[in-house]
Amino acid sequence: MKQVLIIGAGRSSIFLIQYLLQWAEQSKAQIHVADMDISLAEKRIQQHPFGTAHKLNALNPDERTPLMKNMDLVVSMLPAHLHFDIVNHAIDLKIPVITPSYLSKEIDALHQKAEKNGVLVLNELGVDPGIDHMSAMAFLDEKRSQGAEFKGFESFTGGLIAPESDNNPWNYKFTWNPRNVVIAGQGGAVKFIQEGKYKYIPYHKLFRRTEIIDIPDYGKYEGYANRDSLKYRETYGLENIDTIYRGTLRKKGFCRAWDMFVQLGATDDSYVLEGSENMSYREFINSFLAYNLTDSVELKLKYYLNLRQDDDDLWEKLESLDIFSEEKKIGIANATPAMALQKILEDAWSLEPDDKDMIIMWHKFTYELKGRVFETTSSMVCIGENQQKTAMAKTVGLPLGIAARLILEGEFKLTGVGLPIHKEVYTPILKELAELGIRFKEEEREL
Amino acid sequence: MKQVLIIGAGRSSIFLIQYLLQWAEQSKAQIHVADMDISLAEKRIQQHPFGTAHKLNALNPDERTPLMKNMDLVVSMLPAHLHFDIVNHAIDLKIPVITPSYLSKEIDALHQKAEKNGVLVLNELGVDPGIDHMSAMAFLDEKRSQGAEFKGFESFTGGLIAPESDNNPWNYKFTWNPRNVVIAGQGGAVKFIQEGKYKYIPYHKLFRRTEIIDIPDYGKYEGYANRDSLKYRETYGLENIDTIYRGTLRKKGFCRAWDMFVQLGATDDSYVLEGSENMSYREFINSFLAYNLTDSVELKLKYYLNLRQDDDDLWEKLESLDIFSEEKKIGIANATPAMALQKILEDAWSLEPDDKDMIIMWHKFTYELKGRVFETTSSMVCIGENQQKTAMAKTVGLPLGIAARLILEGEFKLTGVGLPIHKEVYTPILKELAELGIRFKEEEREL
Repeated sequence: MKQVLIIGAGRSSIFLIQYLLQWAEQSKAQIHVADMDISLAEKRIQQHPFGTAHKLNALNPDERTPLMKNMDLVVSMLPAHLHFDIVNHAIDLKIPVITPSYLSKEIDALHQKAEKNGVLVLNELGVDPGIDHMSAMAFLDEKRSQGAEFKGFESFTGGLIAPESDNNPWNYKFTWNPRNVVIAGQGGAVKFIQEGKYKYIPYHKLFRRTEIIDIPDYGKYEGYANRDSLKYRETYGLENIDTIYRGTLRKKGFCRAWDMFVQLGATDDSYVLEGSENMSYREFINSFLAYNLTDSVELKLKYYLNLRQDDDDLWEKLESLDIFSEEKKIGIANATPAMALQKILEDAWSLEPDDKDMIIMWHKFTYELKGRVFETTSSMVCIGENQQKTAMAKTVGLPLGIAARLILEGEFKLTGVGLPIHKEVYTPILKELAELGIRFKEEEREL
Repeated sequence: MKQVLIIGAGRSSIFLIQYLLQWAEQSKAQIHVADMDISLAEKRIQQHPFGTAHKLNALNPDERTPLMKNMDLVVSMLPAHLHFDIVNHAIDLKIPVITPSYLSKEIDALHQKAEKNGVLVLNELGVDPGIDHMSAMAFLDEKRSQGAEFKGFESFTGGLIAPESDNNPWNYKFTWNPRNVVIAGQGGAVKFIQEGKYKYIPYHKLFRRTEIIDIPDYGKYEGYANRDSLKYRETYGLENIDTIYRGTLRKKGFCRAWDMFVQLGATDDSYVLEGSENMSYREFINSFLAYNLTDSVELKLKYYLNLRQDDDDLWEKLESLDIFSEEKKIGIANATPAMALQKILEDAWSLEPDDKDMIIMWHKFTYELKGRVFETTSSMVCIGENQQKTAMAKTVGLPLGIAARLILEGEFKLTGVGLPIHKEVYTPILKELAELGIRFKEEEREL
């Protein structure tokens, strides 16, 4: 009887655990769910006959070893920076391990040891990274096998609010980690390659260099560039491609409005605001504007941001956040501007109980095949069921669950540390995801 | 007979050495000039009867000790980060030491040891920092002794090109370290206090938040904020002041034009440009602009920077740098954007043999005295003689030379590590600077 250990029972494990428990009913496997908070693990299992909840401090090897040593697979759902010890330990114990997180340099360096021990370590098995790699590689490999040469590849993903729950002027709510949204794009210039030329975008221009993307049946979105476009050239076997661009999707109009905060300096996370705890929202905005004895904060802001009379859509977005309130306080000691802004946004962008989230993924491939040039767009939309069973949890959890099942059933011959970019890995995962409703719609045209 | 050791015979030591050699003729002191390059030390001394040149690797204690141990004073003219060992060693040997550089935390921590050894360590004795502190403290102390309460203090300094050598559209040339000019303002948001409110300016807005300053007889300049305004509240005894602002001066119109490079991302020093060595100036500019099959780099740049038809003064500045040249190459491997931009600017902004530099310093004090409110501006302009005897070398070297003389003549009773903010220090230095032509012009008006 196969034994699986899932470490971490947070929200993103819901579909993963549910999928594996269902599978266990046929396969008679044992699904072990471990968390610091055993009641969370118990909640996920709900006394399922093939499930067991464990209290575990995964960082303590003495606690970890008795549980791990009898497993056939470990799924680490810990925060990304905590995977290394688990992965390293699993390799020592000759147990395969999978994670939804970006493959770190440290884990990548365990490749030879994993191969020597005959163990598979698969990372980036969630949505982005994860489904993006698998769906892109499926298309690239298929067309390359027909003799296609790729000229361009663009790929965008967004964690968004579903249309039926979209009721604020920003067309956005926090469906995942708010902090990552506030500091998105910071930490260095964006670098990509367009028509064979390297291009660089500084942070303060990032949200004005967007691309408009039409998602069939869902309308217009816009994408801003991720920082990491170039590193996937090698991963995807696109070393000589003319254009490669990866980015993040928002509803059209979001980025220009968000840029107002970037221009103010309100997304800065590098210094602390004096007196942030007792600062009103209005004082927060005013701290980025020059002193004036008589002018209002509103007028100074309009002038500073160069807003025109007919930019009322931008103004409406700002007002919807109550940023001119003298009563509402930041209420956080030693807050950076980014932390203060997050507080303001959480007031306005939090999910209501019935709100549903939505994941959109979109690829565009340009390629030459037998002397003709084609452009194919491929898009996937997944809408959450409720605040627990979110689209994010589904698109992270299901590919992990399927990969776990395939490993336990002995479907993969691979060993070593890697990503789901091999045909034997992505083909069955994508097939089953489509059966479960996570499928891509392709449109091809000749250029 | 007094013995003085000057470590470092670079350009900024010229006036210092000349001043001390002249003084030595009356006082019979011995002026020792040490440098890695003994020919440079010899050139400064020119076989003066009271001067001696030494070859010295100042970082080697074995070389340093025999020379230092007989001295009555050491002047360290090394790069700022190399002062510590010299200062620490001098304190051990109970020899006073002075430098023109910002007081570092490490050197400040030697205060108690210096006091215990009865030794004076004076830092920030050049122009900015240096003359700015002394001239500000002289005014502040005088008015405070009359009962004044200060409401505002602004202070700006610029290293500029003299009007008679000002012949390019930027009204600017590199009169000092070009790299510091290119990366000025980077490394964190600017923070200051205005009318009792903390204010923050992100880097990408810094060169648009300038203040216009009229310098009597020299016309209009503009100032952008330094990052460090707040730390001088305590130094100057202005803890409760409503407005404090320190900045850098440029000729009016420079900052808006410089902001074009900031907006492009061309001043970024945090990443390396692909293929920088063979990149033309035109390709460098194009790397910050979106790809377009037909539009010219010129048009894309105008559009990106939102330049209007009548912004021909800005355009003229850009064209004067040859930034659209396809022939001129960056020619530096692994250059950051800032390094590439520095190369382009050095082509255009280098001093010609007869060019003269200019230092401008300007303070504005606002204070209440006996129920009335006054505003005093105080400005100093110093113009260089030639490319060796620059205004920068003069305004750095003379206050150091005078301070050296006063210490050797036993004029200061102080011990410990500090700045020239004490009356007994700044009064005789400012008096002699005025006699040597470095004097402030004050204008007072009642508000």
